[in-house]
Amino acid sequence: MLLRGERLGEISGDVLEFISSREADQWIFEADLLVDRAHLVMLKERDLISKDEFTEIVEALDGIDLDRLGEGEDVHEAIEAELIARVGAVGGRMHTGRSRNDEVATCIRIVLREEVLSLMAEGNALCKALVERAAENADSIIPGFTHLQHAQPTTLAHHLLAHADALLRDFERLRDSYPRINRSPLGAAAFASTGFDIDRKRTAELLGFDGLVENSMDAVSTRDSLLEALSASAILMVNASRLAEELILWSTSEFGYVELDDLFTSTSSIMPQKKNPDTAELVRGKTGTVFGSLVAALAINKALPMSYNRDMQEATPNLWRGIAATRGAVRIMAGAVSSAKFRTDRLEAASGAGFSTATELADSLVRKTKIPFRTAHQIVGALAAKGESPTIEDLDAAAERIAGFRPSERGFGKEELAAALDPRKNVAARSRTGGPAPAETGRMASDRLQKIEENERLVAELKGRVDRAIAALREMR
Amino acid sequence: MLLRGERLGEISGDVLEFISSREADQWIFEADLLVDRAHLVMLKERDLISKDEFTEIVEALDGIDLDRLGEGEDVHEAIEAELIARVGAVGGRMHTGRSRNDEVATCIRIVLREEVLSLMAEGNALCKALVERAAENADSIIPGFTHLQHAQPTTLAHHLLAHADALLRDFERLRDSYPRINRSPLGAAAFASTGFDIDRKRTAELLGFDGLVENSMDAVSTRDSLLEALSASAILMVNASRLAEELILWSTSEFGYVELDDLFTSTSSIMPQKKNPDTAELVRGKTGTVFGSLVAALAINKALPMSYNRDMQEATPNLWRGIAATRGAVRIMAGAVSSAKFRTDRLEAASGAGFSTATELADSLVRKTKIPFRTAHQIVGALAAKGESPTIEDLDAAAERIAGFRPSERGFGKEELAAALDPRKNVAARSRTGGPAPAETGRMASDRLQKIEENERLVAELKGRVDRAIAALREMR
Amino acid sequence: MLLRGERLGEISGDVLEFISSREADQWIFEADLLVDRAHLVMLKERDLISKDEFTEIVEALDGIDLDRLGEGEDVHEAIEAELIARVGAVGGRMHTGRSRNDEVATCIRIVLREEVLSLMAEGNALCKALVERAAENADSIIPGFTHLQHAQPTTLAHHLLAHADALLRDFERLRDSYPRINRSPLGAAAFASTGFDIDRKRTAELLGFDGLVENSMDAVSTRDSLLEALSASAILMVNASRLAEELILWSTSEFGYVELDDLFTSTSSIMPQKKNPDTAELVRGKTGTVFGSLVAALAINKALPMSYNRDMQEATPNLWRGIAATRGAVRIMAGAVSSAKFRTDRLEAASGAGFSTATELADSLVRKTKIPFRTAHQIVGALAAKGESPTIEDLDAAAERIAGFRPSERGFGKEELAAALDPRKNVAARSRTGGPAPAETGRMASDRLQKIEENERLVAELKGRVDRAIAALREMR
Amino acid sequence: MLLRGERLGEISGDVLEFISSREADQWIFEADLLVDRAHLVMLKERDLISKDEFTEIVEALDGIDLDRLGEGEDVHEAIEAELIARVGAVGGRMHTGRSRNDEVATCIRIVLREEVLSLMAEGNALCKALVERAAENADSIIPGFTHLQHAQPTTLAHHLLAHADALLRDFERLRDSYPRINRSPLGAAAFASTGFDIDRKRTAELLGFDGLVENSMDAVSTRDSLLEALSASAILMVNASRLAEELILWSTSEFGYVELDDLFTSTSSIMPQKKNPDTAELVRGKTGTVFGSLVAALAINKALPMSYNRDMQEATPNLWRGIAATRGAVRIMAGAVSSAKFRTDRLEAASGAGFSTATELADSLVRKTKIPFRTAHQIVGALAAKGESPTIEDLDAAAERIAGFRPSERGFGKEELAAALDPRKNVAARSRTGGPAPAETGRMASDRLQKIEENERLVAELKGRVDRAIAALREMR
Repeated sequence: MLLRGERLGEISGDVLEFISSREADQWIFEADLLVDRAHLVMLKERDLISKDEFTEIVEALDGIDLDRLGEGEDVHEAIEAELIARVGAVGGRMHTGRSRNDEVATCIRIVLREEVLSLMAEGNALCKALVERAAENADSIIPGFTHLQHAQPTTLAHHLLAHADALLRDFERLRDSYPRINRSPLGAAAFASTGFDIDRKRTAELLGFDGLVENSMDAVSTRDSLLEALSASAILMVNASRLAEELILWSTSEFGYVELDDLFTSTSSIMPQKKNPDTAELVRGKTGTVFGSLVAALAINKALPMSYNRDMQEATPNLWRGIAATRGAVRIMAGAVSSAKFRTDRLEAASGAGFSTATELADSLVRKTKIPFRTAHQIVGALAAKGESPTIEDLDAAAERIAGFRPSERGFGKEELAAALDPRKNVAARSRTGGPAPAETGRMASDRLQKIEENERLVAELKGRVDRAIAALREMR
Repeated sequence: MLLRGERLGEISGDVLEFISSREADQWIFEADLLVDRAHLVMLKERDLISKDEFTEIVEALDGIDLDRLGEGEDVHEAIEAELIARVGAVGGRMHTGRSRNDEVATCIRIVLREEVLSLMAEGNALCKALVERAAENADSIIPGFTHLQHAQPTTLAHHLLAHADALLRDFERLRDSYPRINRSPLGAAAFASTGFDIDRKRTAELLGFDGLVENSMDAVSTRDSLLEALSASAILMVNASRLAEELILWSTSEFGYVELDDLFTSTSSIMPQKKNPDTAELVRGKTGTVFGSLVAALAINKALPMSYNRDMQEATPNLWRGIAATRGAVRIMAGAVSSAKFRTDRLEAASGAGFSTATELADSLVRKTKIPFRTAHQIVGALAAKGESPTIEDLDAAAERIAGFRPSERGFGKEELAAALDPRKNVAARSRTGGPAPAETGRMASDRLQKIEENERLVAELKGRVDRAIAALREMR
Repeated sequence: MLLRGERLGEISGDVLEFISSREADQWIFEADLLVDRAHLVMLKERDLISKDEFTEIVEALDGIDLDRLGEGEDVHEAIEAELIARVGAVGGRMHTGRSRNDEVATCIRIVLREEVLSLMAEGNALCKALVERAAENADSIIPGFTHLQHAQPTTLAHHLLAHADALLRDFERLRDSYPRINRSPLGAAAFASTGFDIDRKRTAELLGFDGLVENSMDAVSTRDSLLEALSASAILMVNASRLAEELILWSTSEFGYVELDDLFTSTSSIMPQKKNPDTAELVRGKTGTVFGSLVAALAINKALPMSYNRDMQEATPNLWRGIAATRGAVRIMAGAVSSAKFRTDRLEAASGAGFSTATELADSLVRKTKIPFRTAHQIVGALAAKGESPTIEDLDAAAERIAGFRPSERGFGKEELAAALDPRKNVAARSRTGGPAPAETGRMASDRLQKIEENERLVAELKGRVDRAIAALREMR
Repeated sequence: MLLRGERLGEISGDVLEFISSREADQWIFEADLLVDRAHLVMLKERDLISKDEFTEIVEALDGIDLDRLGEGEDVHEAIEAELIARVGAVGGRMHTGRSRNDEVATCIRIVLREEVLSLMAEGNALCKALVERAAENADSIIPGFTHLQHAQPTTLAHHLLAHADALLRDFERLRDSYPRINRSPLGAAAFASTGFDIDRKRTAELLGFDGLVENSMDAVSTRDSLLEALSASAILMVNASRLAEELILWSTSEFGYVELDDLFTSTSSIMPQKKNPDTAELVRGKTGTVFGSLVAALAINKALPMSYNRDMQEATPNLWRGIAATRGAVRIMAGAVSSAKFRTDRLEAASGAGFSTATELADSLVRKTKIPFRTAHQIVGALAAKGESPTIEDLDAAAERIAGFRPSERGFGKEELAAALDPRKNVAARSRTGGPAPAETGRMASDRLQKIEENERLVAELKGRVDRAIAALREMR
């Protein structure tokens, strides 16, 4: 063991396995080599190592391969040990002016920013799929639900745009977290900075960071960006699970409102007729896993004194699991939404069921007869107890009994009644901002597509900035 | 019951109690009256009610008092029932073009924005307390910890600034969430918008919102702003609990590094000598409560189909509990930090213990003798096994054995050794960006104070904007 | 302030509010007076107070009323202060040989055991309601679901008994936790026991406990019984939420399989036709609240050093909230299940839809023609792609193509096909242990009713034992 | 793909990866082969397959190797596909009368019971380590803490026994869960039982189960045993984390009360003198991971309708992660506790600090002078404000001022004062049930060792029963 040295003896199997972070370190192996390179470039520029030493070490790093690393508590130590095995004691210069504490914190941020950018891209793609399906379905009348009961008719466009808007906020949350993630802790050393004349801004720049986690104690001991990324993922999964739930419900034979593409379904080992919405169920299930990752990371970081504590190592696998589950779920949903076949005939047929035009009937009564809304609500409520298709006689009778007048005598006759009960006319009337009327959903769809394109550009720009820095760093000899 | 009407019968005790939101509705009673007012102003401006009706209803609202409201499932219904009791059927006009769904969503956002602004203010105040104490303690040498072991000397300023920087990020998270919170769902009605010619932008403006939750289905069915506020609170509490943990540890007789002001301690019912850091313990405990609130709200919203579901009612008390616990904790910590007496003598005395200058010794060896860092680390590691105060002979012996040379013969003699082992000189040498050297912590403290002032101005501005809108609304007759 | 005495000064508003447990203490006020009484009886029996002192103090306790207690950090202190106000310094003898630490731990257990017994009773009642409805519905054929898709026909009895069995396990978990809950910490004092010659077994007996939390340090510092009760509640709520979910789904117009009694539904403020399953939605929602309570309590207790820490105070309100939500939910579900109207006609009509008899068809093919199951599965799978009502010709064609034989030529003709496709015959054939055949569900229902009665008796016995002890204690003068 | 057959097309990379359970299935591969064997034995005994078919299939199963299985959604399907590849269509008979739903539920329980038995054994071993260390330290006086402040002197034995008692309850919880875990779902088929004349009790017996999860719908759709095992693990980890926290605190240079064996510590990459209690920190950290696993599993199962849903697949990796983390943590703690060097000299020296004998002084005053406890508490509280070593003159002065009498004149003189202030005498006086007096901790240690041996026997018996059944099953040809 490189670090235990003479003082602490060898460590045995059980304990090594328990304290090892090596399984989770696969995530950060590439990042670790980048951090090594950036640190070495800066050491050379500051004359803390010689040009020759730099070249020798960097070339040796080129040959290090994750699969052939020796044992060790963590990947950082294993890389350094392998390096020393290759180039001798000069390899020991690499750790000048830094510590595993700042190193690992930097690696986590390098991987996390990439994950967050990917998640932003995937989330944006799902959003786009939703808006595109919405744009196709501005005239598809569907039952709108509250309490999973038919409430009022709306359109498929309106419904899908509601999901899209939630995902746009999810994008914003990730976007807002990015500047707090993409900061470099490197150079904080163990937590107390270092006496070597290093240049933290230079390594940050080399690694594509937008700035520093400045205070060196904070730099190694905070994991709040990790918590923020997991929070944003958990909230996103709440939104994704709501969409998944609907795909599951709508796929039932009872609802029968959507048919998922075969690719997104499975069958049964004994029920060959089954076509199960497994992908949507797994999205719903993975929501729980992401919640669990967040809770784990919160509980791990609670009440830890400054600065680094080994508990923090345990937070990272929870981060990767949570983020990967979210990314997978979002990606699958985009495919499922794009390829789903909405059964618009059945949806429209259902849209008038359950007297779901009752609100519009009450509203129409208010507008025509000037009675207070609550009175109209009571009249229509009484009709609702009778059945789904009230006649003008039913209406007159109910109004007479409750409010002492007959609507048909105040200009609310058969025709007005029929209009109020027509789902399509219901929807057309609801053209207020954010409503389901086709013109309004059309406006919203265009607007959202524009936002989605802006978001795409933003992700490309952020990713490009990082990629260019890394590509340049890899070239440095 | 106003709403159940003829069709659904009376509801009995147990069930009413189970479904009632009345306890939690105390939080939103005032907001609900504001929403009523804004809606009425808009109805009047749009000629959906007459000027006289408006005046009659608004004046009746003035007299409604939470404590004297009748029973009811929720506060909205109770207010409307009370209104109708006061002014007759015309009171039933108030609910024109809206629903409890948009109403309650609007109320939650009105209260939540106020809570979030207050939390931003309190968090900023705690941050200020930390930075001020840091500024006083730029020269207070203390042991710096990793794994709760003495690692390297640092300063109290450096340590307190690390906490402050975490809180600044907490502020940013709340700040970033605000534009997503301060949007108006009002006018979404049940979820499908309305056929009445209402003006959503006008009610938003009257209520001090910065914009709309536009899609009417999204408007009533999303609670993701609530989840975001709870996430930000949970992360903030992670940071606050870390500070609380240290106050608890440092208050022990073993550490003895801080004495909390009497106001922030309690004693025992049978141990009269005790002075317990109860406030800090409760901050740490309330962290769990905030985690629980977040988990509850996440689990409640998971997989809910569109649009409104009654489950959402259950999320709100979890929101208020979580936010209130966070606010209380932050406020208490500000007082505890401001009034704490740091025992700088004991801190400085401890700062050299545990051979915590070993890293500087290794670094100095590297700089003077040009050996690789890892070699120096091994030499000093061997010394560490012996005790805390190595002599130059010890050093020479260890280096000879491990690396085949004697430092004293390469210009690293007694004097260099003494310098490396002096905590104060250690700290002075660590003047890199973010390090503990007094000049650097001084720079950071000034910079943070400026940020804190900017944050104060931002909160004042956001709060002022809301307050002016509300004050104007209250005057409208 | 009784306890702060001379040394620590007065405490101000903010801080007092922050550290106060008074709101949560309403739960334990009655328990606290019982603990006082039991402790006093024992002190008298041990001659640690005189008979006269005993009588004087106990009579004063009779007059103490929660609503008129003065301020104070907690209810214990407030009661003692009120007592001293009433009887003078002699009241100060009550706290001989005990501490608030053991006192509050005892109070929590007194209330918790009562809550757990009540929850056991309510859970058992829900279970009974399910089994009774099952017994009525042994012949009600319904579609059985996997992945919410029609899978195979089953019966309503079978389905409801599945929920009942889950609740029986929930009962067992609570029952198993009881012996760990109903133990007395009293006499542990602050944690270190006491030098007074007290008798812990006697106070345990007086208070109806079944034994001691023996080690005095463990006694005041463990809250694991609380965590266990919350875990059992959370698991119970998982089961209750599954039932609630089905009531919600089955209440939709699409499913239309159940109609909840009006009492358990609500309507809308603008959609008078709505009959929403709010009670079931709130049960589902409260599941999240119970999860949150558990997470809070776990996080609060994590990593607390021995022995008492003030954080523990924060666990208790989470306990009461979680348990109360569970109890309310279970109670409501029992009413909803008992009064629900299952629409067995629609259920039976749906039971053949979706080719849900495919498995039985494959199984029948295996039995008659001796082909391997997987081959039969492939043949029937191919049929499923065609539609829901295969003819014998379809079957022959598919089998020929896939397996090179014609079932009709191996004794599997029209009649066998028709039998395999008949849902009722399907169900009758599934008479294995635990299956849906009426005889088997009948056997299970009888067996479960017997278990439920045993459970009722157990609760009555445990409750009786406690009640008798408490009644006797209240009489002691 | 074996199951998708003709109707559903091929599945592509992304989706297959998303829905695959193959990574988690490594846990259950062996169990799956056992389930296959038991099912085949029963099919043969019931003449549902021939003896020759049985032999052919079982021998083919012998050759199946996890590493060489082909692709597939899950391990069950991959095994069946491999089997058919080896023996032809007859391999398709294996799935007669069962489904993946009962199969996977059975596999989970087979692995889970083994994990739970192992955890019981490990927990018991940790408990034993604690009691053994306690037995060695009956006379080691230590400071007892509340609020992490010195409160009263106690003994190391008393302290360690408190941890042991918590672990004994953890054992009980796992023990109580076992009968609910070790039940067989096999034969439930997809959920609706089967028309084949299978014998569920026989397969249960062959697999070493103690009974059935009887109702076939419940059998495939419940995961509450999984939730219970995770809950018990989470509570255990709360207790383990408390012990870990103390090892961390006591290892600090400030406390200096324990030295962990080198094996259980690590050092730093730049601070060679460090000896960090990493194992204890990771135990504390893993507590969060176990909480997260529980939350994930709870959230996943919430509100799932009957019967099987694909979400459930996502619960299982959370189960294995949570249980494995718990087992590893408990095992490590046993080693750390057994090998820890308690620094009893420092502990005893600290035990009188902080006037921690104040309670005994107050109690002694009560006993000698008959004043009420609260009065004595006030007198001693006043002394505490002065310093740690009151003289008899201090005491007289304080008592005179507060209570109008001089203790020294009522028989409480110098000698009595000295005795009250002696930590060792303090401890000796506290010989009540559960107290720290050596005789009492000795009694408790003996009693607990006996319980631990009973627990060992119980685990051995339960494990033996399972192992014998499995060994016999493996032999069946």
